[in-house]
Amino acid sequence: MKLLRVGPVGQERPVVMDAAGDLRDIGEPEIDGAFFASGGVARVRDALDGGRLPLFEGKGLRIGAPVARPGKVVCIGLNYRDHAAESGAAEPEEPVVFMKAANTVVGPDDEVLVPRGSVKTDWEVELAVVIGGTARYLDSREAALDVIAGYAISNDVSEREFQLERGGQWDKGKSCETFNPLGPWLVTADEVGDPQDLAMRLWINGERRQDGNTKNMIFDVAEVVRYLSQFMVLEAGDVVNTGTPAGVALGLPGQPYLRAGDVMELEIAGLGRQRQRVGQA
Amino acid sequence: MKLLRVGPVGQERPVVMDAAGDLRDIGEPEIDGAFFASGGVARVRDALDGGRLPLFEGKGLRIGAPVARPGKVVCIGLNYRDHAAESGAAEPEEPVVFMKAANTVVGPDDEVLVPRGSVKTDWEVELAVVIGGTARYLDSREAALDVIAGYAISNDVSEREFQLERGGQWDKGKSCETFNPLGPWLVTADEVGDPQDLAMRLWINGERRQDGNTKNMIFDVAEVVRYLSQFMVLEAGDVVNTGTPAGVALGLPGQPYLRAGDVMELEIAGLGRQRQRVGQA
Repeated sequence: MKLLRVGPVGQERPVVMDAAGDLRDIGEPEIDGAFFASGGVARVRDALDGGRLPLFEGKGLRIGAPVARPGKVVCIGLNYRDHAAESGAAEPEEPVVFMKAANTVVGPDDEVLVPRGSVKTDWEVELAVVIGGTARYLDSREAALDVIAGYAISNDVSEREFQLERGGQWDKGKSCETFNPLGPWLVTADEVGDPQDLAMRLWINGERRQDGNTKNMIFDVAEVVRYLSQFMVLEAGDVVNTGTPAGVALGLPGQPYLRAGDVMELEIAGLGRQRQRVGQA
Repeated sequence: MKLLRVGPVGQERPVVMDAAGDLRDIGEPEIDGAFFASGGVARVRDALDGGRLPLFEGKGLRIGAPVARPGKVVCIGLNYRDHAAESGAAEPEEPVVFMKAANTVVGPDDEVLVPRGSVKTDWEVELAVVIGGTARYLDSREAALDVIAGYAISNDVSEREFQLERGGQWDKGKSCETFNPLGPWLVTADEVGDPQDLAMRLWINGERRQDGNTKNMIFDVAEVVRYLSQFMVLEAGDVVNTGTPAGVALGLPGQPYLRAGDVMELEIAGLGRQRQRVGQA
């Protein structure tokens, strides 16, 4: 099942895409933590299967992020060997964890802004995990998979100078305005099947820059969620960005960082496609 | 003006403490981002001055955090020279920024849990800034001060092994359950006066461990807020923890980290007092 939110910024309506590719009103106020925690996914599935959801005319409407304002966005760093290598970093012995401000989340095709003073704005295609319940000290991989509502594409946009050269922690280069396009859909876990066999690609101005597969994660989705739950309480509606494969500007010859006017396109198998034009803050 | 929220977890009622020390119902649904963004502080002040707020019987009720679920909790590291020194860190040339998960925020007297597997849980008394509006690329110290709704005491509880020895970024040791007692009150900026002249102290089991003053911040409140707004959009209801002075367990002889049964007490001049019993997760 593909859940999404369509409409102008701040006025998105939650809908589901049916088997024919048409949008249907899900009859819920939002797709957010409360929706997931109260069994919203099962309610929508039941109503959809029962033919009780009215068609929604969404033609030409903007697509927003498929989750309304997550409680937190947690990220795993250096989770693909080839990206760790291109970053000049050692392969981590356990997951590297950092956070993005939750108000970085924007729609999959919204403009991404190069921050003022930035010369090293970079892209990162990632598999995002959307949490569907409370995860606290999970004791198994199975429990971790059980708490996942679904998956989406995430662009973990990063400013490398802010992240690496301005003193201290990575968060400084990860939380700028518009730095987390998410979507177009939240695809429910059952429909995704094996989250460790998804091709992921990213193009800049039509040129392919990243070409990876989630099978190359160092710590897989189940382990990432289980691990995080030992250090924090994950809640329904939280988003976990699970890391990016090689091919970011930081690791490319000449470091071709983003400039206003560039176009980013991202794709993960089964999760759709994003397209962002880059602007200047 | 002192704003606070009283009642059981998840059922807190927003109230104001009047000049006589009595609580009065503020007639607003919450003290949160929407409250601040819509001019809630001015509404409450006007209603309080006009004698229109009914008494609220809060005797014996628990005090919650004075802000309902912040959008984000941003922290400044190593912002007091003596704490940087005791941590074995160089004095930062610009603010060190990291984040805590927003669901770490609990009431000022709620139990703080030592995480499972933790042997290095530590305390940090800090001046918390509560943001009252949107802060984006602020261009002056004055603009930064203008966007501050008020101040509160924060205990930036930290697990030093998770933070420093488990690979990667500090966030891993900062976001554990119950790791951010906040309150008892949000004291509005006008009542606090100069935020750079507040004595701050912390006791463990009655023994004074931290004894500092906000005048010793390396980057003061106005600069911290102005600086952060260059890297992220701060929003109404966000919380900024501005750093801790010396005297944390990490820097003390024998490193006397917290154990279940310990009692933490924290005080900042004009901002009240916190008291947390330490439990085991």
